[in-house]
Amino acid sequence: MRTMREIELEGHIIDSLIMTKVFDKIMDMNGEFEVLTFDIGKRKTDPSYARLMVIGKDDEHVDRIISELHRLGARLPEMEDVELAPAPADRVVPKGFYSTTNHPTHVRIHKNEWLSVENIEMDCLIVVENTKALCKPLAMIKKGDQVAIGKKGIRVVPPERPRGRSIFEFMGGKTSSERPSETLISQIAEEIKEIKKKGGKIAVVAGPAIIHTGAAPSLAKMIKKGYVDVLLAGNALAVHDIEYDMYGTSLGMNIENAELVSEGHKNHIYAISEIIRAGSIAKAVEQKIIKGGIMYECVKKNIPFVLAGSIRDDGPLPDVVTDVMTAQDAIRRAIKDVDMVLMMATMLHSIATGNCLSSYVKTICIDINPATVTKLMDRGTAQAIGIVTDVGTFLPMLGEKLLQ
Amino acid sequence: MRTMREIELEGHIIDSLIMTKVFDKIMDMNGEFEVLTFDIGKRKTDPSYARLMVIGKDDEHVDRIISELHRLGARLPEMEDVELAPAPADRVVPKGFYSTTNHPTHVRIHKNEWLSVENIEMDCLIVVENTKALCKPLAMIKKGDQVAIGKKGIRVVPPERPRGRSIFEFMGGKTSSERPSETLISQIAEEIKEIKKKGGKIAVVAGPAIIHTGAAPSLAKMIKKGYVDVLLAGNALAVHDIEYDMYGTSLGMNIENAELVSEGHKNHIYAISEIIRAGSIAKAVEQKIIKGGIMYECVKKNIPFVLAGSIRDDGPLPDVVTDVMTAQDAIRRAIKDVDMVLMMATMLHSIATGNCLSSYVKTICIDINPATVTKLMDRGTAQAIGIVTDVGTFLPMLGEKLLQ
Amino acid sequence: MRTMREIELEGHIIDSLIMTKVFDKIMDMNGEFEVLTFDIGKRKTDPSYARLMVIGKDDEHVDRIISELHRLGARLPEMEDVELAPAPADRVVPKGFYSTTNHPTHVRIHKNEWLSVENIEMDCLIVVENTKALCKPLAMIKKGDQVAIGKKGIRVVPPERPRGRSIFEFMGGKTSSERPSETLISQIAEEIKEIKKKGGKIAVVAGPAIIHTGAAPSLAKMIKKGYVDVLLAGNALAVHDIEYDMYGTSLGMNIENAELVSEGHKNHIYAISEIIRAGSIAKAVEQKIIKGGIMYECVKKNIPFVLAGSIRDDGPLPDVVTDVMTAQDAIRRAIKDVDMVLMMATMLHSIATGNCLSSYVKTICIDINPATVTKLMDRGTAQAIGIVTDVGTFLPMLGEKLLQ
Amino acid sequence: MRTMREIELEGHIIDSLIMTKVFDKIMDMNGEFEVLTFDIGKRKTDPSYARLMVIGKDDEHVDRIISELHRLGARLPEMEDVELAPAPADRVVPKGFYSTTNHPTHVRIHKNEWLSVENIEMDCLIVVENTKALCKPLAMIKKGDQVAIGKKGIRVVPPERPRGRSIFEFMGGKTSSERPSETLISQIAEEIKEIKKKGGKIAVVAGPAIIHTGAAPSLAKMIKKGYVDVLLAGNALAVHDIEYDMYGTSLGMNIENAELVSEGHKNHIYAISEIIRAGSIAKAVEQKIIKGGIMYECVKKNIPFVLAGSIRDDGPLPDVVTDVMTAQDAIRRAIKDVDMVLMMATMLHSIATGNCLSSYVKTICIDINPATVTKLMDRGTAQAIGIVTDVGTFLPMLGEKLLQ
Repeated sequence: MRTMREIELEGHIIDSLIMTKVFDKIMDMNGEFEVLTFDIGKRKTDPSYARLMVIGKDDEHVDRIISELHRLGARLPEMEDVELAPAPADRVVPKGFYSTTNHPTHVRIHKNEWLSVENIEMDCLIVVENTKALCKPLAMIKKGDQVAIGKKGIRVVPPERPRGRSIFEFMGGKTSSERPSETLISQIAEEIKEIKKKGGKIAVVAGPAIIHTGAAPSLAKMIKKGYVDVLLAGNALAVHDIEYDMYGTSLGMNIENAELVSEGHKNHIYAISEIIRAGSIAKAVEQKIIKGGIMYECVKKNIPFVLAGSIRDDGPLPDVVTDVMTAQDAIRRAIKDVDMVLMMATMLHSIATGNCLSSYVKTICIDINPATVTKLMDRGTAQAIGIVTDVGTFLPMLGEKLLQ
Repeated sequence: MRTMREIELEGHIIDSLIMTKVFDKIMDMNGEFEVLTFDIGKRKTDPSYARLMVIGKDDEHVDRIISELHRLGARLPEMEDVELAPAPADRVVPKGFYSTTNHPTHVRIHKNEWLSVENIEMDCLIVVENTKALCKPLAMIKKGDQVAIGKKGIRVVPPERPRGRSIFEFMGGKTSSERPSETLISQIAEEIKEIKKKGGKIAVVAGPAIIHTGAAPSLAKMIKKGYVDVLLAGNALAVHDIEYDMYGTSLGMNIENAELVSEGHKNHIYAISEIIRAGSIAKAVEQKIIKGGIMYECVKKNIPFVLAGSIRDDGPLPDVVTDVMTAQDAIRRAIKDVDMVLMMATMLHSIATGNCLSSYVKTICIDINPATVTKLMDRGTAQAIGIVTDVGTFLPMLGEKLLQ
Repeated sequence: MRTMREIELEGHIIDSLIMTKVFDKIMDMNGEFEVLTFDIGKRKTDPSYARLMVIGKDDEHVDRIISELHRLGARLPEMEDVELAPAPADRVVPKGFYSTTNHPTHVRIHKNEWLSVENIEMDCLIVVENTKALCKPLAMIKKGDQVAIGKKGIRVVPPERPRGRSIFEFMGGKTSSERPSETLISQIAEEIKEIKKKGGKIAVVAGPAIIHTGAAPSLAKMIKKGYVDVLLAGNALAVHDIEYDMYGTSLGMNIENAELVSEGHKNHIYAISEIIRAGSIAKAVEQKIIKGGIMYECVKKNIPFVLAGSIRDDGPLPDVVTDVMTAQDAIRRAIKDVDMVLMMATMLHSIATGNCLSSYVKTICIDINPATVTKLMDRGTAQAIGIVTDVGTFLPMLGEKLLQ
Repeated sequence: MRTMREIELEGHIIDSLIMTKVFDKIMDMNGEFEVLTFDIGKRKTDPSYARLMVIGKDDEHVDRIISELHRLGARLPEMEDVELAPAPADRVVPKGFYSTTNHPTHVRIHKNEWLSVENIEMDCLIVVENTKALCKPLAMIKKGDQVAIGKKGIRVVPPERPRGRSIFEFMGGKTSSERPSETLISQIAEEIKEIKKKGGKIAVVAGPAIIHTGAAPSLAKMIKKGYVDVLLAGNALAVHDIEYDMYGTSLGMNIENAELVSEGHKNHIYAISEIIRAGSIAKAVEQKIIKGGIMYECVKKNIPFVLAGSIRDDGPLPDVVTDVMTAQDAIRRAIKDVDMVLMMATMLHSIATGNCLSSYVKTICIDINPATVTKLMDRGTAQAIGIVTDVGTFLPMLGEKLLQ
């Protein structure tokens, strides 16, 4: 039997494309709608408000539609408290569990109290503990956790599209290899300086191609000059950075003249072995085994780093977190309050980091492979830009613009 | 002071390009040479033999040259026993350690006894224990292990180039996206059948795009029909395979009509949660939670699988090995005696597997991204072919040819 | 001085994203707006109507904004006739000329008569001749042509987003290499059959990789069975198709066993030489020099084809149009009334064809290179889908689905 | 009946891989061989000499094998004069015509006179006219031309592998995106300076992405400073260069701030129209319509350029050669005596140019797409390097290194 239910939309619903997405979704799902109220913001700074009647062929149909609209930021006016159900066992979900978006989210308890969900990230569960609402990945769910189910009493607030003269605005979430590279790099440098001026935090996710392409000194300098607050990488980045510092090579290739060094293929194993002997990267810095480079600057400046293990690793270095779930959690904690993430030349670590980010964190993805950039942007945040370029020329140019 | 030393080359040194590489290397390193003897095989089946005098500007120069030639299969005629030195600590190399190639390698002990190095793989160390020579990655080196150093008493035997009408021959280690796809697929099917007819073993390394592109039923069928002896994959492949079996979707997309299913984004979390509740994939098959698909066929046919963890993982499934070094070792053991590896749509797992392979294992790399295929071929084995194609059309076609 | 002007929007302005784009554009250009009227279609089938007051800092500012809105389909309510100015010389534009979009466009003359612009395509001029409005590329402008300037009296009607269960809808103008390939191919086959059932016309743009990858017989069969109404290609496609028919090779490679044929590198020159001797492809078919293949089926079925020349060409064949502007015009005429274009494995010919297409023509782009697919989609039409796949497996599968 | 025939190899046959390729080819074709003489160069500077007996199952088999060996540089000791046959008609080949390689080639006439084939390029014919041997593409063959057939009296001299410390040596014809970018760019700058110091000529093949990515000023400066002797490009490069000079935009995007300019989409049409009005690029420079940029510097420095037409072209500019065969010929003449070609960001023009190059011309290929670089390298010359990088960062860095 034909059913209808009201929903509300509020905020910059036009500018952020929310209204369009809502109309689209209803029609895509073969539902219908009537617009009951539509108070459009007269100026671009005014919020808008709309009430729609959503019409479906039966209760279940309307339910399914509203469930999708909810993820887009729509809410039911006759708001109730969030519904909770206990997790039946460790890492087992209760039926009908609410799966999070990466947008800021709030849950209602005690009739009129709204809790902001802490550490929101995508594809997780919401657990309410006393006066706190926590976003937890499946792996952290414990038996008996009070898990949010359905969508009553849950509000999602998608971020507005950035507006103004920022690079995040005019790049509009698009990737391109045919934009003015030097101009974009200048603008990224401006963004970085702006964030640091405001006391914001910047995380860098970095792949080993940074070393192979000769860009390590630029990144090391950026760290030294205070532009990096967290470093996320794998064993290979650290190994080749240390190999380069100790022997001048990366995977046996002399970075200064691009020639393969005799016996150079052993250098990375020697480098790992030396750090194992020293006990850790920090101890190797202390013992002056490592005298420069990316890891050296991190140690010297007390910049936290996470070296997450992967099945490709040689060694690995003693600092590498070899359990992937422990590593994932270390990444999660490391990026907790960053304002911007610069992802360069690694798909694995960038996706892992992107998975843990809220939608309001600014993201910049740099890779030579357009498919990698597209993949990162897809799961990206609201303010994301992607540049298909060569990290070996990008980083030196960025370094120069930053240090001007 | 100008020094000279003799080396020998033996076997199919022309056909396998060994001689050319040796000449090249000497000249690249600014050395000189004189050909003392050159008995060329009169026919293509005859081995050749050459003795060269290598000339350098001093002892150290000649040493460096010979060290490189050694890796190409050259040997010193005045052969001595292998030199050994104890590892100074766990995971620490003795100075001058010998770093392995992925070619079959032999070490001489007790004046005239040659030991074949077991489980040879690239970038490892050779440890001699009583009458055994073992290839060990750095992570497995224990304090006091007798590690081979220098290159005396070590022989490397690079494989000959395959000859005959095999696809491995005429593709000649090259990658191409402009070859007759259907013809190549038929020839790969023939190779697979040939290997199985001789009782050989085939490993499959598989990425989740196999599920997303709708090729899962083809791979499941190949397993069922006995064409797969080992499966190497990550959490995502198993999760989406199980999601597809339980809900008909992959990442929420209905595979039969390519539409996004309402609430489908939760399906993979439900799938993981259900398997955690059951205890393992095998138990979920037993409890009829999983009724078909890739993992189902593995369980039913007792095909061993390794699900190696990565920092991108949701869940993960209880069968996933979350410690990367444990997982690496599991891969190493799983592929110990395989004759062919089919790598499809995953760079991470394919590189990890490729790292552990000897040079005589046949390798086939399938990916839509030419850079991935090139990277896999570079570290590849002597008999490697790469095809840039869509796994979603490749696997159904391969399945058809196999089951004809 | 602050100025304001009214604009109207009408039609499926929400569903087609027009309203959102209009709001966006005003704000991006630092303008402001007030919503005067907003009659939203109550149901998805109802058109909507909106009147906005656009506010800028002076006349020129408002002009610039309205000029952009106009391209999105907005119109000035106080409509006037189109303004015309004579072209000052052949291939020279009058100042302020109107540059076309690829959307259906109408111009007003004689106070209330609306002319539909014939053969609309992007980046051209509108010339009014008596009672006709023609879309002309710069190259065809003659001195004295009455060219539309400004934007008064010109209406643009962007197509609605397709709705329903068509593949063009749910692919939503996106490209993906991780969709179920076989499912998508089935749906493309359905679309093709549907169009032919309704008496529609289909153009195929084809690159030589179709021959190299062994897919020529599938395309030849599609032509024979009546699924292709126009063929657009270059010299190479025809040369290798004929080479394959005459000698079984493509660029000297035997397609049936993927081996290079002795002296095979001469086959394409022989093939060209033979056709030159015969006089044309049609004559070669007549003289039984060509006995099968893509070009053969075109000749036999009287399917028009355009072989456009490029600077890479060997030969070329006598049928090739070597002047690029003549060739461009031949393409333009050939696709005049097609309903769908299938672009496969050629960037050059696909872009050239895409440049001449109206926005309502359905477009399917197939390429192994994601950058090519993205580029084609960007300039694409409203109903465009792109699939990153291997034409060598795609075409045989499509052929099979079509002929089922 | 089993047949045998002698062949000779001479020169740096080991170093250049010729001997290996000869052995390989014989065995691939199921032939056999005996080594009759093998005088190996004792030092790397000494040439070697070998005589082989090639054995096949019958005359025709040996013929086929020798025909392939011939292309690799082998020759028959019992040398005869080249055989000639008249072309039966314009653009029609005589049976058994000899198809050229891109290696230096000589033909014997009058018993002992050797003529060097002029303007050698791949896939062409050799025409002997009095005391000249000319390399002619099929399109230029006239009825009655004396065309070389078979392979008697024809010698091919493949170039040696470069040796020394040049970038062309250690990159070894390989492409990589994981090399030290800045180091490679410095080395390319050194090569360019070296060639200019010796009075050599450099051709640049350039795509429009150079303008879009903001690298136009760097290329303009290189031209101004005398580093470019010939420019090969298409309509788009010139149009956007002129658009950028006249309006500061490229395809409507402001290069200094990466923003789309209002009405900017019309700028390229205005630019073309203005040049048409002026009559030519040179006249527009004279009339001060163009005041800077790539084309401006070419005109000012009298650097010859070829703008070859393509079916994608808007306009085109009056300087564009719209007939592709005329354009191909213009390219051929323009690069006649160049020593190095720098191919950047265009597949179409780079392949067309590469087709006309002899194997001893140095080639550098720069593209963001690895498939393009690989394709260019494949048809490349002996001294070719490919770099997968962003032309928008590459060119500014190269410019800086050159002008240091």
